[in-house]
Amino acid sequence: MPAVTIREAHAADAEAIGRLLHDFNTEFDDPTPGPGSVAQRVRLLLEAGEVTVLLAGRREPSGLALLRFRPSLWPEALDCYLEELYVVPGRRRGGLGGALLEAAIELARRRGAVRMELDTSEDDVAARALYERLGFNDRGGRAEGPRELSYEREL
Amino acid sequence: MPAVTIREAHAADAEAIGRLLHDFNTEFDDPTPGPGSVAQRVRLLLEAGEVTVLLAGRREPSGLALLRFRPSLWPEALDCYLEELYVVPGRRRGGLGGALLEAAIELARRRGAVRMELDTSEDDVAARALYERLGFNDRGGRAEGPRELSYEREL
Repeated sequence: MPAVTIREAHAADAEAIGRLLHDFNTEFDDPTPGPGSVAQRVRLLLEAGEVTVLLAGRREPSGLALLRFRPSLWPEALDCYLEELYVVPGRRRGGLGGALLEAAIELARRRGAVRMELDTSEDDVAARALYERLGFNDRGGRAEGPRELSYEREL
Repeated sequence: MPAVTIREAHAADAEAIGRLLHDFNTEFDDPTPGPGSVAQRVRLLLEAGEVTVLLAGRREPSGLALLRFRPSLWPEALDCYLEELYVVPGRRRGGLGGALLEAAIELARRRGAVRMELDTSEDDVAARALYERLGFNDRGGRAEGPRELSYEREL
């Protein structure tokens, strides 16, 4: 595989990001307002500095990592939340997800984050293996003990 | 039990919040920089609008809920993350956690949030029962299916 280019997205990439996130939602049977609406929202969030997006590939990106940053409760640093990590079906098993995640870790460190969090489905064995290979732990950062569950509700 | 007062904290409550969060960390064997340092950090974050804190009790608060808000990726609304929920040991099993969580849900709705997330330990049966009673779900919001795991790593 030729080396893949991972780069930080700008507002001009909103359309490509909208397509990827729309495809992501569709593949996992999550509701989606359509690629155009996602793109419009992403453009606003990128311009406001509310999200940071890494793209794999120069023209037609084949994957993305979407990050949020917030000031940690403690210490005086940032926490990073990896909200989305997606690789298009035709480009999986080629190391793209790992390259995106490694680039996300590197970017988060540069920004001053000391911790990264993410949620993933218990049955997504491939994703969990990737996260664990890159140092993530679902036991609250401890070597042993109970797992951390992610709960949510609509309001 | 007399009705408990739940109120939104101001910067002047930072010392009380620092004590509660320090006690929380200590009880769960998490590292803590001490109540004074936590208070100092919380004051800054409250003043910057980075955190919202609800306190149970007027003078000597006996519990707290600490919330973060961020613009949702989709729809045009806010997501809320319940980062901390704590009740001092002597006041547990009296409905304080539930009252704090209900107040947090109400506040998040008023602010325009459409979703609330939180993480909890698989073995914290009491907390999980409370979250589930108040409508939270650890299956990505679906009635059935795999659970959502929370992963993290230091950077």
